[in-house]
Amino acid sequence: MEKALEQLVTALTELPGIGEKTALRIAFFLLRQSRVAERLTVAVANAREKLHECPICQNLTEDRLCSICADGSRDHHTICVVEEPADVLTLEQTHRYRGVYHVLGGVLSPIDNIGPRDLNISTLLERVATGGIAEVILATNPTVEGEATASYVYHQLQSYPIKVTRLARGLPTGVDIGIADLDTLSRAFDDRRDLTTP
Amino acid sequence: MEKALEQLVTALTELPGIGEKTALRIAFFLLRQSRVAERLTVAVANAREKLHECPICQNLTEDRLCSICADGSRDHHTICVVEEPADVLTLEQTHRYRGVYHVLGGVLSPIDNIGPRDLNISTLLERVATGGIAEVILATNPTVEGEATASYVYHQLQSYPIKVTRLARGLPTGVDIGIADLDTLSRAFDDRRDLTTP
Repeated sequence: MEKALEQLVTALTELPGIGEKTALRIAFFLLRQSRVAERLTVAVANAREKLHECPICQNLTEDRLCSICADGSRDHHTICVVEEPADVLTLEQTHRYRGVYHVLGGVLSPIDNIGPRDLNISTLLERVATGGIAEVILATNPTVEGEATASYVYHQLQSYPIKVTRLARGLPTGVDIGIADLDTLSRAFDDRRDLTTP
Repeated sequence: MEKALEQLVTALTELPGIGEKTALRIAFFLLRQSRVAERLTVAVANAREKLHECPICQNLTEDRLCSICADGSRDHHTICVVEEPADVLTLEQTHRYRGVYHVLGGVLSPIDNIGPRDLNISTLLERVATGGIAEVILATNPTVEGEATASYVYHQLQSYPIKVTRLARGLPTGVDIGIADLDTLSRAFDDRRDLTTP
């Protein structure tokens, strides 16, 4: 393979979800479609230049504050703690949550040498210490690292007079009980909802 | 979503095989990993600058001629006709073919307004007309467009005293007869190999 082509394929395989075959397909596509290549290059540079962390919640923003922290109609007494900016986008799509967010920027992972100081935990504690916070919802992923991170943050928050909650675990919509894994079923029992007391 | 982020996601979804979710994941990854973003941008620019078509076979190359056309040890009397440069890479991986190639740059597709003049067919005819060619192997894909293109090229080549062949159709290795589609099975009958006459 030509060196310049190989370099491009290598660079593309570094992206998440892109294997060797897809990388090759994208590389040839970019070489054929100059405009797409141009738009991509400009968009990457532009996004890297303009987007920075919101000083309050560490979500990505182009402005001084992110649109959620700057929104006076949101409930600023409730903070939903997530791993990544992408999680904010996902949760916002439910239109169920009206509070604000705090982006940790990852999860605790001793294997990858990521400790509490590598995450935006101290800024969360500062927000809570400043007062005015009623509830912190821990919305890290239901993975080993996500659970460990939620547990760590929970212990850090224990000295403050606030409610700390974790997103419910249970059966995902549309999944048959026969297909659900045993851990999900166990969690569905644990977090079961009382229908008799309103 | 922030505008710069949305532009990046849109640019990424233009790439083949990249849906909205993967694009979002890649976008956030590129914003976090400056070095990967840098390497990608440089690799795209570099590949677009350095790679051009080989004047003989229209494969992509960094040099004057592609490495296959420039290789004196290859059989320059046999030309394998393929749709795209990617096909050359794939066929080379078999190490079965020792001839040279001709890249059409696509397939005939009336729907997309792609006719014979949009493909590198005249340059193929010139190569054959110059003489010294014994066989042309038509290796376009076994799709409707690929077959139509092979058929068109075959008719264009009929006036020359050369052998024109098409890659065999049949059962792919490792696939059970019960799983193969009926067209593949029919082709496997048509192209069946005589084991008794050597």
